Amino acid sequence: MEVRVSWHEGMRFVGIGPSKHAVVMDTDAVGGEGTGPRPVELMLMALGGCTAMDIVAILKKMRTPPQRFEVLVQAERAAEHPKAVRKVHLTYRAWGVPMENLERAAQLSQERYCSVSHSLSAELSFSVEVRD
Amino acid sequence: MEVRVSWHEGMRFVGIGPSKHAVVMDTDAVGGEGTGPRPVELMLMALGGCTAMDIVAILKKMRTPPQRFEVLVQAERAAEHPKAVRKVHLTYRAWGVPMENLERAAQLSQERYCSVSHSLSAELSFSVEVRD
Repeated sequence: MEVRVSWHEGMRFVGIGPSKHAVVMDTDAVGGEGTGPRPVELMLMALGGCTAMDIVAILKKMRTPPQRFEVLVQAERAAEHPKAVRKVHLTYRAWGVPMENLERAAQLSQERYCSVSHSLSAELSFSVEVRD
Repeated sequence: MEVRVSWHEGMRFVGIGPSKHAVVMDTDAVGGEGTGPRPVELMLMALGGCTAMDIVAILKKMRTPPQRFEVLVQAERAAEHPKAVRKVHLTYRAWGVPMENLERAAQLSQERYCSVSHSLSAELSFSVEVRD
């Protein structure tokens, strides 16, 4: 897979990949104007989106699609440069599904399917919450 | 840092982080409509954006800002699930800067500054190109 990231101005950059959907990135630091998400934020969104897609697809296959679904991605970063993400906790929150199905889907995603999880060096953990 | 990714419909998800810039993610697979970048694509954009910000900031500090700058991010993924990204090659391409400054900036980003590079498990390599 190939992605191209081009500089626009200040600290604003635009990424384009195979799907042809452009994504703006920016920062508030080093002269940026904060016109888009920061790269580390985008990486955490990619992690959340990857595993969330697994969970929703698996819950649908189990014939227990959620009424609503979200995942919180909480990252701990090193204090010193390069401030790598060391630990990430994922909280899977689903509405109207059996707890055991959500647990099983979360395990399958983390152990077998999620490409982004398996491309990160951070220590990952997760918990699940079911709501009515 | 905390990010929330919420399911909308189909395989469309929206991520929100501290910068408050929403990012859509989608896929063409498992019932998705391809309305946004895929998570792995977004992760590679995050990598490219992170290191590109370093490079432009460092070149500015060296008083040799580029006329134009882009980075190509080429990733090799495992064939089997979870299809992790195993190798990434970054090609830094700058217009109107001394080659040695671009090389030095690329080294500094990869060795010391780029948070996303240091948060990935993939083997990273890079090359530099200067154009007039």
